[in-house]
Amino acid sequence: MTLIDSTTVNRAGARYGDPDFVLAATSPVIEHQLRHRSVRAFLPDPVTEDELRAVVAAASSASTSSNLQAWSVVAVTDPERKRRLSDLAAGQRFIDEAPLFLVWVADLDRGHRLAERDDKPLDATAYLESTLLGVIDTALAAQNAVVALESLGLGAVFVGAVRNHPEEVADELGLPPHSVAVFGLAVGRPDPAEDADVKPRLPQTAVLHRETYDAGRADAGLPAYDERLAAYNHAHGLTGAWTERVLARLAGAASLAGRDRLRDVLERRELPSR
Amino acid sequence: MTLIDSTTVNRAGARYGDPDFVLAATSPVIEHQLRHRSVRAFLPDPVTEDELRAVVAAASSASTSSNLQAWSVVAVTDPERKRRLSDLAAGQRFIDEAPLFLVWVADLDRGHRLAERDDKPLDATAYLESTLLGVIDTALAAQNAVVALESLGLGAVFVGAVRNHPEEVADELGLPPHSVAVFGLAVGRPDPAEDADVKPRLPQTAVLHRETYDAGRADAGLPAYDERLAAYNHAHGLTGAWTERVLARLAGAASLAGRDRLRDVLERRELPSR
Repeated sequence: MTLIDSTTVNRAGARYGDPDFVLAATSPVIEHQLRHRSVRAFLPDPVTEDELRAVVAAASSASTSSNLQAWSVVAVTDPERKRRLSDLAAGQRFIDEAPLFLVWVADLDRGHRLAERDDKPLDATAYLESTLLGVIDTALAAQNAVVALESLGLGAVFVGAVRNHPEEVADELGLPPHSVAVFGLAVGRPDPAEDADVKPRLPQTAVLHRETYDAGRADAGLPAYDERLAAYNHAHGLTGAWTERVLARLAGAASLAGRDRLRDVLERRELPSR
Repeated sequence: MTLIDSTTVNRAGARYGDPDFVLAATSPVIEHQLRHRSVRAFLPDPVTEDELRAVVAAASSASTSSNLQAWSVVAVTDPERKRRLSDLAAGQRFIDEAPLFLVWVADLDRGHRLAERDDKPLDATAYLESTLLGVIDTALAAQNAVVALESLGLGAVFVGAVRNHPEEVADELGLPPHSVAVFGLAVGRPDPAEDADVKPRLPQTAVLHRETYDAGRADAGLPAYDERLAAYNHAHGLTGAWTERVLARLAGAASLAGRDRLRDVLERRELPSR
């Protein structure tokens, strides 16, 4: 399968910031995925109920560990609630401006409610494995939602900053114990005035290993990638290359914006990392 | 947008095991996502290099926290290595039989190598937050890969059981410290003889909350879902309903197949859950 305009636009090349990278096999779905970009400026038009149902149906279609479906999503449209969540999530104003803010929740509480109803034990959720399982299920569902909403002409950006103050976010949304907000997703119709573009990713040689992990081969392309990303940033009014941003983001506890407390928070939310 | 055959096949209804559930808004991409099913029986035909490149390009197109791209993937095709990984992952023979086994890795080591090269600190990876960030990035990429490979006529199933013995899996793949296999993905051309079908998911009322979390409303549909899944299981030679499987899977440490040791393993792999 090939998409008609793939003969004129090399979307895979744009994805890697490398015009020489072309795909010999592709599909309309893949060409759609290659166009993903984060959108942080939205028109005021609401996301319709029909659109939301379709997006959640796509989320439900993602894989899930043992069919546990250990996730929930809270759809927030109330302007006051969005403003409060925005304040909790590093004050990012696009959360206010987006007509819809989806908060994706790793949810082991559904299982606990069933266990209580049926008077059964549910002790596995005390282990880090179960929290990771919930986080994985949540991420798989949310990524499917993004692919779906973009196919409806909507745009979105993930908001990891809901993990800056997870207890306050849980209070705001009335989340039960055994659950935690993993990330938000601001959703709306993209403002065409925004300077949002496809951001180049690490070359395939950096992320794809054959049979065993080969760090030397993987890192050989990083200097060229740094140059590509510096050029992209410069063209979009940003500064710096990739490496310095990675090193700043992961320098230490202070660069985690409060998320260094996450393990204690999970303990208090009855998702201990045993 | 509507897909031509959406007028004759209600894929959303099949997704929820509820013929009355229909989508008023949809797209060809969403109709594709609704068709997802796990495939565990494969024809022997290899996955081509062109297909693998397209699948990884889709994975690279997923969102990533702060563009850190904290994931890698190891493509395993060697029959002996697949057999050993299969032995480590609960002996699931479809890992052998799949021509390609992709092992998805939460990878904070790339950052550590850059930090070492540039003589900078990288202390944030000692916190649970960074492990979660890597797991989230990995899951977002892998879900995009699944959507892509299915659009090429391939099929796949996730293998969480690579977390049963993460240290042995890391040794087999030569994974560096600050990294861990999150899950595997067995990939190949679906064997048409397999009895694989679209498995009904929890109703939207169970996972989608409005403004705040409402456990009572969410759980009202669970008995009906249990009946739907019992019927699905019966039709596919399986037993039981949903609730009893959830309760068995999360009963306690013994039901985690070794994954109750995951926190200690991460500590030893230099991804401590501080």
